Amino acid sequence: MKFGYFDDSNREYVITNPQTPWPWINYLGNEDFFSLISNTAGGYSFYKDAKFRRITRYRYNNVPMDNGGRYFYIKDEDTVWSPGWKPCKTPLDSYECRHGMNYTTIEGKKNGVSAKVLFFVPLKTWAEVQKVTLTNHTDGVKKIKLFSFQEWCLWNAATDMENFQRNFSTGEVEIEGSVIYHKTEYKERRDHYAYYSVNTPIQGYDTDRESFIGLYNGFEAPQVVVEGKPRMTEAHGWSPVASHYIEVELKAGESKDFVFVLGYVENKEEEKWESKNIINKTKAKAVIARFDTATKVDAALAELKAYWNNLLSVYSVTSGDEKLDRMVNIWNQYQCMITFCFSRSASFFESGIGRGMGFRDSNQDLIGFVHQIPERARERIIDIASTQFPDGGCYHQYQPLTKRGNNDIGGGFNDDPMWLILGTTSYIKESGDFSILNEMVPFDNDMSVARTLFDHLTVSFDHVVNNLGPHGLPLIGRADWNDCLNLNCFSNDPNESFQTTENKTEGTKAESLMIAGLFVVYGRDYVQLCNVLGKTEEAARAQKHVDNMVEAVKQHGWDGEWFLRAYDYYGHKIGSNENEEGKIFIESQGWCTMAEIGIENGMVKKALDSVKERLDCEYGIVLNNPAFSKYYIEYGEISSYPPGYKENAGIFCHNNPWVIIGETKIGRGEQAWEYFRKICPAYLEEISDLHKTEPYVYSQMIAGKDAFKPGEAKNSWLTGTASWNFYTISQYILGIRPDYNGLIIDPCIPSSWEGYTVTRQFRGATYHIRVENPNKVSKGVKTLLVNGKPQDGNIIPLLPVGNHQIVVQLG
Amino acid sequence: MKFGYFDDSNREYVITNPQTPWPWINYLGNEDFFSLISNTAGGYSFYKDAKFRRITRYRYNNVPMDNGGRYFYIKDEDTVWSPGWKPCKTPLDSYECRHGMNYTTIEGKKNGVSAKVLFFVPLKTWAEVQKVTLTNHTDGVKKIKLFSFQEWCLWNAATDMENFQRNFSTGEVEIEGSVIYHKTEYKERRDHYAYYSVNTPIQGYDTDRESFIGLYNGFEAPQVVVEGKPRMTEAHGWSPVASHYIEVELKAGESKDFVFVLGYVENKEEEKWESKNIINKTKAKAVIARFDTATKVDAALAELKAYWNNLLSVYSVTSGDEKLDRMVNIWNQYQCMITFCFSRSASFFESGIGRGMGFRDSNQDLIGFVHQIPERARERIIDIASTQFPDGGCYHQYQPLTKRGNNDIGGGFNDDPMWLILGTTSYIKESGDFSILNEMVPFDNDMSVARTLFDHLTVSFDHVVNNLGPHGLPLIGRADWNDCLNLNCFSNDPNESFQTTENKTEGTKAESLMIAGLFVVYGRDYVQLCNVLGKTEEAARAQKHVDNMVEAVKQHGWDGEWFLRAYDYYGHKIGSNENEEGKIFIESQGWCTMAEIGIENGMVKKALDSVKERLDCEYGIVLNNPAFSKYYIEYGEISSYPPGYKENAGIFCHNNPWVIIGETKIGRGEQAWEYFRKICPAYLEEISDLHKTEPYVYSQMIAGKDAFKPGEAKNSWLTGTASWNFYTISQYILGIRPDYNGLIIDPCIPSSWEGYTVTRQFRGATYHIRVENPNKVSKGVKTLLVNGKPQDGNIIPLLPVGNHQIVVQLG
Repeated sequence: MKFGYFDDSNREYVITNPQTPWPWINYLGNEDFFSLISNTAGGYSFYKDAKFRRITRYRYNNVPMDNGGRYFYIKDEDTVWSPGWKPCKTPLDSYECRHGMNYTTIEGKKNGVSAKVLFFVPLKTWAEVQKVTLTNHTDGVKKIKLFSFQEWCLWNAATDMENFQRNFSTGEVEIEGSVIYHKTEYKERRDHYAYYSVNTPIQGYDTDRESFIGLYNGFEAPQVVVEGKPRMTEAHGWSPVASHYIEVELKAGESKDFVFVLGYVENKEEEKWESKNIINKTKAKAVIARFDTATKVDAALAELKAYWNNLLSVYSVTSGDEKLDRMVNIWNQYQCMITFCFSRSASFFESGIGRGMGFRDSNQDLIGFVHQIPERARERIIDIASTQFPDGGCYHQYQPLTKRGNNDIGGGFNDDPMWLILGTTSYIKESGDFSILNEMVPFDNDMSVARTLFDHLTVSFDHVVNNLGPHGLPLIGRADWNDCLNLNCFSNDPNESFQTTENKTEGTKAESLMIAGLFVVYGRDYVQLCNVLGKTEEAARAQKHVDNMVEAVKQHGWDGEWFLRAYDYYGHKIGSNENEEGKIFIESQGWCTMAEIGIENGMVKKALDSVKERLDCEYGIVLNNPAFSKYYIEYGEISSYPPGYKENAGIFCHNNPWVIIGETKIGRGEQAWEYFRKICPAYLEEISDLHKTEPYVYSQMIAGKDAFKPGEAKNSWLTGTASWNFYTISQYILGIRPDYNGLIIDPCIPSSWEGYTVTRQFRGATYHIRVENPNKVSKGVKTLLVNGKPQDGNIIPLLPVGNHQIVVQLG
Repeated sequence: MKFGYFDDSNREYVITNPQTPWPWINYLGNEDFFSLISNTAGGYSFYKDAKFRRITRYRYNNVPMDNGGRYFYIKDEDTVWSPGWKPCKTPLDSYECRHGMNYTTIEGKKNGVSAKVLFFVPLKTWAEVQKVTLTNHTDGVKKIKLFSFQEWCLWNAATDMENFQRNFSTGEVEIEGSVIYHKTEYKERRDHYAYYSVNTPIQGYDTDRESFIGLYNGFEAPQVVVEGKPRMTEAHGWSPVASHYIEVELKAGESKDFVFVLGYVENKEEEKWESKNIINKTKAKAVIARFDTATKVDAALAELKAYWNNLLSVYSVTSGDEKLDRMVNIWNQYQCMITFCFSRSASFFESGIGRGMGFRDSNQDLIGFVHQIPERARERIIDIASTQFPDGGCYHQYQPLTKRGNNDIGGGFNDDPMWLILGTTSYIKESGDFSILNEMVPFDNDMSVARTLFDHLTVSFDHVVNNLGPHGLPLIGRADWNDCLNLNCFSNDPNESFQTTENKTEGTKAESLMIAGLFVVYGRDYVQLCNVLGKTEEAARAQKHVDNMVEAVKQHGWDGEWFLRAYDYYGHKIGSNENEEGKIFIESQGWCTMAEIGIENGMVKKALDSVKERLDCEYGIVLNNPAFSKYYIEYGEISSYPPGYKENAGIFCHNNPWVIIGETKIGRGEQAWEYFRKICPAYLEEISDLHKTEPYVYSQMIAGKDAFKPGEAKNSWLTGTASWNFYTISQYILGIRPDYNGLIIDPCIPSSWEGYTVTRQFRGATYHIRVENPNKVSKGVKTLLVNGKPQDGNIIPLLPVGNHQIVVQLG
C-alpha cells in the first residue's frame, strides 16, 4: 500500500494521505540551524546541537505519536482546521505534503479555502521561514482567523524534560509589534534568544501555553482557538509559547501570503541589551527584514533549489530504471547530506540528546557526501581527527557544539581509528587535495601535542598493529563496528550501558575478524597512499603488517565454510559452526570478502555462498544466524534483543553493502544487484504499510526472518546505510570510482542490463560516461573510449575543465 | 474558589470538580511499591526508585497536562466515558475523587451507570490494587464494555525517553488467562517483571499501544475502544501496554466488582524461568490470589486505614480551629510520611529521574516523621550516615535502590554534615534508643572503615570546625541550605549545573551565616548529647567551638539591623544594607534567631523586626529583598531566577518556620501564628484558583511580592516545608517537645487563644495534655499538673505505659 508518490522532476516525495504508517519526515537546513518536520508539520528546531540548543519543544513517543510542532490553526466560522490535518484532525477536502530537498510544503483545503505552507531554512540563515498562502476559492468573501503556534524549549533538551522544579519558574518572553521573543535564561548565562515573527500587523497574541491551550485541552483544540479570541498573555514561568493572531479577509478568488520567521540569535556579552532587561533585537530584525515579503521568500527558495541542483549534478545516472535513478540522483545523495550533518543525533528515532557526532559514524558518512562539498568534508576530517589520542585510539563520539570528545562515552572501540584512513583517502581521491595531510591536528583537542594529519593516519594504522591478540588478530576492545558485540563487558546490571560499562581488558583474548578485514582493506589504502607520497619505506613496513593479517585470517579466521566473527574473552570462537546460536555473522563475511582474503583458494566465494544460504531472506541479509534466543553474558547486548531485531539477526542495513561489494569482487552482478534492491527504499514503496518508514530514505534496520514482523523497518534517516549504499551503487555496481589519478571504471551489474549513462563531475571536469553491455556480462571493461580515443585499462585519466565523452564497453 | 472540600472524619480531601487548576495528586504505598495518582487517575508506579524501576510510563509537562495513567474506559452503547472524567472528557452526570491516607477513590456516573474505582497499595505488597465497582442505577439491563489500560515503562525512566533506536525493538509481553505480563529485558539482565491482572475471565486484550490506541488517536479515544472490539495483540517492540476487555451485563440495580492488580515481581536467577522463554509466574499468582475477591480487597483497605489510625494517634490536637486540627492531625503528618519516603524524587514537579535521597533533605524530613515510625527513621539515619566521608563531608545525594552516594552530584555542601546531628538527636529524643550511637557505620559505604554513629556526629561537628573562613565563620563550600547561592561557582556556561560545576575553592573567603547559626543550634545539641552520655570532656571541647561561633557571628555577622547572609568569594558582604539588591535574606535571620545569638542585646528582636518589615508579604515571608534584577556571577543561580520566584525572593516555604521558631524564642505568639497560617495550605483553600496546587499539602514555593503573580504556588508535596512546619507547630507553637528525659511543654501562641488539647504517645505512654490560657499570654508555663499532681518546671518526666492526664496553665 502506498501513501503518496515520487515526483522526480521536482525532486519531491508527495504524500497524499496524512495518516502515514509512521510520521514521514524531512530535514530543513544543512549548516547551523536545523528543523525536523513531519508530513503533518510535527517536529522541532535546533541550532547546531540538538541537545544543548533546542529551540522548540518536542515530545518523543507521545500519544498520539508526533504531537507538537509548528502549527497553524484556521478558524473559518465554527470550523477549525489545520493545513497538515494534524493537530486538529478536522477532515480536509484535500491534503498534500511535498518533501523536497531541504524544504517541505503542506497544503490543505477546507470549505473553499486553501492554506499552503512552505517551510524551509534559507541558505546561510539561522531561521526557519514559513510562508502561509491562504486562498479563497469560493465566490463570496471569507473572513478567517489565523492562529500560529510554536512551543519554546528551554534550550537544553535533556533538562527541559527533567527539571521542572526549576523550569516552571524561569520562562521569559518579550513581545514587540508582531514579533514574540523567547529569552529564558538570557538574563543570566545565555548569549542567545529565539523569536517568532510575522510580516503583518497582528490583532493579538499569546505566549503562555496554559492560557492558550488550556490545562485540559490538547493541541487539537486550544481553548483560545475554540473561543476565537487571543488572551494577550505574557508568559512568566511555566511553559512559554508563541502564537500570533491574525484576522484575514479574502475576497472571492483572492490569495494572501504571510511570512513567519522562527529564528535564533547570538549576541556578544557587550551587545546583549538594548536597555535594562530589554534584549538587543538588531540581529533578529535584520533577518526578519530579509524575508518580509513573499517575493523575497520565493527568491530564497529558488537559491536553495539552485544549490541542490548544483550538488546533485556531481553524480547522476540514467539507467532506464526510474527507481534506481531517483535513489542515485536524488534521495540517496540527499540522505547522505543529512547523515553528514546530523550523524546519529536527531531523527524521529534519535532523540537528539543521547548521541553526538561519531568518530566511526562520521568517517563513514563522508564517503557518500565527499563528492558534493569536499570543503566541508575536509573540515569534518580535521574535527574528527582532533579527538584522537596520541596512541591512535580516540573518543567514540564528540559534541558538535564544543567539538570535544564525549567523556561519558569514552573510547576503546578498536575499529574506530581505521575509519579515519577511509575518510581521509576518500577526500583526497575526490579532491586531489594532498595538502590536508600536512595540516597540524591536535590530539584530544590539545594543540600543544599536534601532529600532521598523515601522522594521525600512521597512529591509526599502528593502533591495530599494537593491539593484536593471541591469534595475531585485532583485539576488539569495547566493541568493533557492532556496538552490541560486547566481548569484554560481562554485565549483569540492567542499569549499566553495555557500551560504557568498565570492561575486563586484562587477559582478554577477544579478537575481531571484522577489524581484521577492515585493517586489510584500509591498510592497503594506507600503503597505496604512502606509495603515492613516495614514502616507500613506510609503505613496505605497512604492507608487511597487512600481509601478516591476511595470513592470520586465513589460519585462524576461517571456519570451513565462512569466516569466523570473533574470539571471545576466553578465546572461544564466535560465528562458528561449532556454536549453537550465532553460527555465522555478516560483518566478517563482508570485510574479509571486500579484502579478498583467500580469494585465490575460493574462500571469498564460499563465504558469500554461505551468506546467501544462511543470512539472506526476503527483505535483506540478516546480521547473524541462528538468532540468539537467550542472553549470553560473554557476548553482551547483541543477545539482549528479541530474535530478528537490531543486532540480533535483524537486517542491519548498514552492513548489507559490504556483502554487495564482496559480491562485486568476484563479479556476481546479479547477486549484488538483488541484495541492493532488497533494502533500497524506492523499491519498497508498494509495501509502505509493512515497511512503515519513509519510502525515500534508508532505515537502520528491517526486521529479519526470525522476527515477529519481518520487513518492518525502524530508525529511518540517520544510518551509515545511506553512505554505504551510495558508495556501493555509484562506485561498485555502476562502478565509477575516484582514484588519486583519475576515475576508475569498474561496473558489476546484472548481465541482463543493456547499459546506462553516468554524468560525473570530477576535479573540475565533467565526464559523460556511457556504459554499454552488448555481450551481456556482469563485469569487465573491454574497451574504453575517451573523447573518441581508445584508452588502455579502465582508468580515465584526469582531464581538463570542460565536457568529456566516455564510452565504455563491457565484455 | 474551591474545587472540593475536606472530609476530616474520613481523613479525605474530596474533589468535586475534575478540572482543578493543576493536577491534584495523592501517593499510594509507603514502603517499596509506590504510585502517584492525580484526581483524574493520571500518574505512574515504580518500585523503590523512580528512575531505575519505573513500572508504568508517564509524560511530564505534556499537552494536555497530566495525560496518561491507569485508565478505565466504559463503552455504554455509543457513549465512551471514564470514571475520572479524563482521559475521555465525556461530560459526567457526577464526579467525585477522594484522596485519603495512601488510597484514592474516583467515582463517575453517566447515563444511569456509576463506576467507582478504589486505588491503593496494600501494606507490605508490591502491587497497586484497583477495585472497580460498576452499578446499574436504571430500571433496565445495561450491557457495558469495560476496557482497562496501563502503559509499561521500559524500566529505566531516563533511557525510556531517550533511547528509541533501542527501545522500540525490545518490548516483550506474555499473556496467560486474565493476566498480562510485561517482561522486557527479563531475558537478559533483569530479575524483575510486572503484571496487570483482573479477577474475572476476559473477553479479549491488547498489549500493543499502536494497535490499541492508534497512531493518530489520543488517550481520549483509543481506536479499539471506539470500535468496541479488542485486537488481541501481542506486543513485539514499540510500546507494550496492557488492556483487558470485559463484557459486563448488569441487571437493574445490580453492582459488580472487578479487582485489577498491577504488580511487580523479582525472581532469583535460578528461579527466573518456568520453561524456555516462559517466565516464572509463581510470585505474581500468589499476590493476585491475595486480592481475588472484593472482600479480600476491602479487608486490605481496612488494614491500611487501621495502620494510619495508629500512626496518626501519636500526636493529635483539638484546638477549636478545624483548619489547624486537620493540618496537624491529618495532612501535615501525612505529607511528612510522603517526604520521608520520597525525599525530592517523584512528584508532579519532580520527574523522578533527577534526584535521589538527599543527605540534608532526608535528615530534615525525619523530624516530622520520627514520632510515627522511629524504626524506619533509625534505618534511614544509618543509610544516610553511610554515605559520609571520613572527614565529615558527604555525598549530597544517594540513590535509594543502591543506597550509594551519587557521584554525579558529589559533595561539598558545607551545611550537610550538621543535619545528621539533628536527625540523630531527634530520633533518640523520640525513642530513647541510645544504642543507635554504637552502631558501626561505614564511610562512603565501605565497611572496612566503619566507625560508630557517634563518631560520625563528631566528624560532622568537626567538619564545620575544620572549615572556617577568615572571619571564623563556616566556609560555605558549594552551597549551604540554599542550593542556589553558589559563591564559589562563577559560571558563565549555561550548560553547566550551578550545583555540580567545579568550584573555585582555593583562596575563597566565602562564608555562610546560615551555617553559623545552624552550627550553634546543633552544636549545642551535640554538647547536650555528649553531656547526657557523660562525655564531659568532648562536651567542653565542643562548647568552646560553639561559643567561638557565637562571638564570630556577633562580631562579623551583624549588619546593624539584621544578620548578614554571607561573605562572598572575595570577602564582600552579602545580605547587607550596603548591597544594592539582596540586602536581607531569610536564612540567616532564621538560624541566628533560633540560635538566640545576641538575644541579650536585642539582636534577635531587631532581626525579626527587619524580617517583618522587609521580607513579609500577604502570602508569606520571601527569601530575600530586594529581589535580584540581574545576574551576579559571584552569587550564582539565585540571581538566575526572575524576581519573586524560587530562591530569588520567592516565598520558599521551607525556611518560613525557621523565622517562626525564632519568633517563639522571644515569645511573639501572634507573629509566629500569623506566619504559620499564611503558608498553611488548609487556610488557602478558598484561593485555590490562585494558589493552584493542592490545598491539603505544602508547596515548596509560593510566588513572592515581586513576582508576576504573587500567591501562585509551585512544587507541591516534596519539600522540607512539611517536616519543618509540623516540627514548628507541634513543638514550638503548640509546644510539646520530646527531650531525652521527658516531654518539654513550651507553647507560644496568640494571647487570644483560650487553650487546646494535645494527645501525645511518647515512649509507650499516652499523654492527654490540656493547655489552658486564662491569663491570655503567649508564652510561659505557670503551672503543670501531671495526673493531678503539680510538677515543677515545664518538663513532663517519662511515665509508665498507660494514660496520663496533664494540665498546663500558661501565665
